[in-house]
Amino acid sequence: MSDFAMEPLVHDAWYIGAWSHELDEGPIARRILGEDVVLFRSGDGTAAALEDRCSHRGVKLSLGAAVEQGLQCGYHGLVFDGSGACVVNPGERTSPTFCVRAFPVVERQHFVWIWMGDPALADTGLIVDFAWHDRTDEWNFHYARYDIAANYMFMIDNLMDLTHLGYVHTSTIGGHPGEHDDAELTTTRTARGARYVRWMMESTPPPSFVKVAGFEGKVDRWQEFEYVAPASVLQWGGGHDSGTGGRENREKPGGMAVRLFHHATPADDENFHYFFWRLYT
Amino acid sequence: MSDFAMEPLVHDAWYIGAWSHELDEGPIARRILGEDVVLFRSGDGTAAALEDRCSHRGVKLSLGAAVEQGLQCGYHGLVFDGSGACVVNPGERTSPTFCVRAFPVVERQHFVWIWMGDPALADTGLIVDFAWHDRTDEWNFHYARYDIAANYMFMIDNLMDLTHLGYVHTSTIGGHPGEHDDAELTTTRTARGARYVRWMMESTPPPSFVKVAGFEGKVDRWQEFEYVAPASVLQWGGGHDSGTGGRENREKPGGMAVRLFHHATPADDENFHYFFWRLYT
Amino acid sequence: MSDFAMEPLVHDAWYIGAWSHELDEGPIARRILGEDVVLFRSGDGTAAALEDRCSHRGVKLSLGAAVEQGLQCGYHGLVFDGSGACVVNPGERTSPTFCVRAFPVVERQHFVWIWMGDPALADTGLIVDFAWHDRTDEWNFHYARYDIAANYMFMIDNLMDLTHLGYVHTSTIGGHPGEHDDAELTTTRTARGARYVRWMMESTPPPSFVKVAGFEGKVDRWQEFEYVAPASVLQWGGGHDSGTGGRENREKPGGMAVRLFHHATPADDENFHYFFWRLYT
Repeated sequence: MSDFAMEPLVHDAWYIGAWSHELDEGPIARRILGEDVVLFRSGDGTAAALEDRCSHRGVKLSLGAAVEQGLQCGYHGLVFDGSGACVVNPGERTSPTFCVRAFPVVERQHFVWIWMGDPALADTGLIVDFAWHDRTDEWNFHYARYDIAANYMFMIDNLMDLTHLGYVHTSTIGGHPGEHDDAELTTTRTARGARYVRWMMESTPPPSFVKVAGFEGKVDRWQEFEYVAPASVLQWGGGHDSGTGGRENREKPGGMAVRLFHHATPADDENFHYFFWRLYT
Repeated sequence: MSDFAMEPLVHDAWYIGAWSHELDEGPIARRILGEDVVLFRSGDGTAAALEDRCSHRGVKLSLGAAVEQGLQCGYHGLVFDGSGACVVNPGERTSPTFCVRAFPVVERQHFVWIWMGDPALADTGLIVDFAWHDRTDEWNFHYARYDIAANYMFMIDNLMDLTHLGYVHTSTIGGHPGEHDDAELTTTRTARGARYVRWMMESTPPPSFVKVAGFEGKVDRWQEFEYVAPASVLQWGGGHDSGTGGRENREKPGGMAVRLFHHATPADDENFHYFFWRLYT
Repeated sequence: MSDFAMEPLVHDAWYIGAWSHELDEGPIARRILGEDVVLFRSGDGTAAALEDRCSHRGVKLSLGAAVEQGLQCGYHGLVFDGSGACVVNPGERTSPTFCVRAFPVVERQHFVWIWMGDPALADTGLIVDFAWHDRTDEWNFHYARYDIAANYMFMIDNLMDLTHLGYVHTSTIGGHPGEHDDAELTTTRTARGARYVRWMMESTPPPSFVKVAGFEGKVDRWQEFEYVAPASVLQWGGGHDSGTGGRENREKPGGMAVRLFHHATPADDENFHYFFWRLYT
């Protein structure tokens, strides 16, 4: 599908670089927006991200180890702190000009967010908030990361057009394509993207709904998706027995509901890291 | 061997796209002359070939399913018929200009032939006829397809120059290189290629001949090969006990004979699909 | 690490093409300085090297067999001698202009050396001598060959800067980085490279030293390395119990010593063959 006209990757934006727990085992290498990055946690526990290449002899810093002062290169022992400064240069002097590139990082709600563009523009207020990330005591949750060989916009495209459900996810949340064609769709432009609410009234509950909530008759089912450019999609979906007022009060007890946070971090033009967080009642 | 000067691939010609039986399990993806093609059988049983890319969102149509009206894309359910027309567009209208590229296809003698060039030139009279393909009740046969990482002309080169038999196929139909050097060779130009007849009189029967026909002494052995440009080679070979008149009457009872049909469909400049059909008595 | 500025490969030099014993099983294919080479032993036992491509139909000669007169192509049986001349052309005449490129080869001290540049400059006096190669009856030895995906100069860089020992080889010959930082280093320019002698007086014996020689206290340890451009490094290292006069007389009995010959033959700009010979007492 490389013959699709593709938009240039957006650099001045926050992307998810890693799950917080991924850094617990030591530094990790990850390709983000065409650059090799090492993500690690310094001695004080702060997450940081550097160019994954020692400026001394070019070795990948991700092959080294997180130490008290920062990240130690595994070859000759140089240590760089989270700002990219070389703070230990064994047998030699350090110098302010001897450093590696560092990237702004913010750890929040189980994610390590990274800014690959101009650091001066890295406004942390732009980080997408998804309050449900902190309510893991109330909701069951499932998280994952997949490396997918496609431009990241194909994932956004997929999530923002649910007409594929009838054909692709027949054994879980899909099937009955005609009912999907007949869904009511309301779309709203937002400051940083778009939101739609989609209702399938008096529709057949798909296999996963039946399995989780035990529906026996028709359901009033909704799908609410919000795209926050460039890489996040927030999802709220669920259903209630038809005729029980579910459309007027989606949060009423019974039925089923699921909340998901989707994020597609470009590795490069043709690959992305798909971060996926699902909570359900 | 990519530094060989290679001829451009010939587009205005019939190539074998698949064995007929390959389409029985559903659509198949195949690269032919540098293009990704999907071959499938429509609801009425007719073989067809389309560009392997849905014109809606670019998904490979070969991931979909053959349905009554044609080939259904596995992503959003669009259906294209064998002419490439979109006949089902769920939730939307179809349009004469919304289609995928289709390729002329003819199914004959167990093969699905495809024309990748200008459809206006696709004269079915140009399809190579090999009557033996229909005599599977009279002959034992063996068929296969190999994907080979080389320009397809290396296969033609191989088949049309048998001096390699003495060195390569020593445990089956080769060995005794000196006898191959001494073979009598008669070559004839034909309308679409060339034919040669090669006689190895009073020669040593190779291992496969001994195994199949039990030769105990010398044999008069022939190899008749015809190249039909650009991609087919028809073969008739065999042998009789020397001194029994086999040269004058190759079809007389006894001895052994084998007929093969070779076809090398270019996948691209550096790969081809080798279709191979062997009948023997 | 491909963004390092790399020097052009040096063609007019002797490189190790193979271990002598590698040719005992028949011809071998090896990529050297960007060219595909076949190394083999002729019927008279002489090692030779040719371009790995038959000038008839382009097949790799390394797929053929060493025969009395040279190397026989496995496809049509042509034989080329060690000078590249075609000496057998089955069913055809040979011709002085029909040949393959040959490379000067010298077999010495268990190695097959090859010259990929201008043959007129192939002075065998330039081959690096390492007399220890012939003393396998006196010393235990170990040899190996590794194919490494990096520019060959990274290996030279590694061997000529031992400050990495403290960080990389902690379980064998390294550890205690501070002691390595404090080593005394004397460097000398030589006609074809450089030599250094490095002393770590009163230092902690590394794990391998303890294992081999049973050191119980501090050691006076030396490392003497000589680089002979472009691809060889000769090493002599060892240690004696501190205070026993080891620095004045390294060859005195007791303690431990090791001699190594390292050679990095470029396969191309980003790959090399690392030949490694180690003798120890």
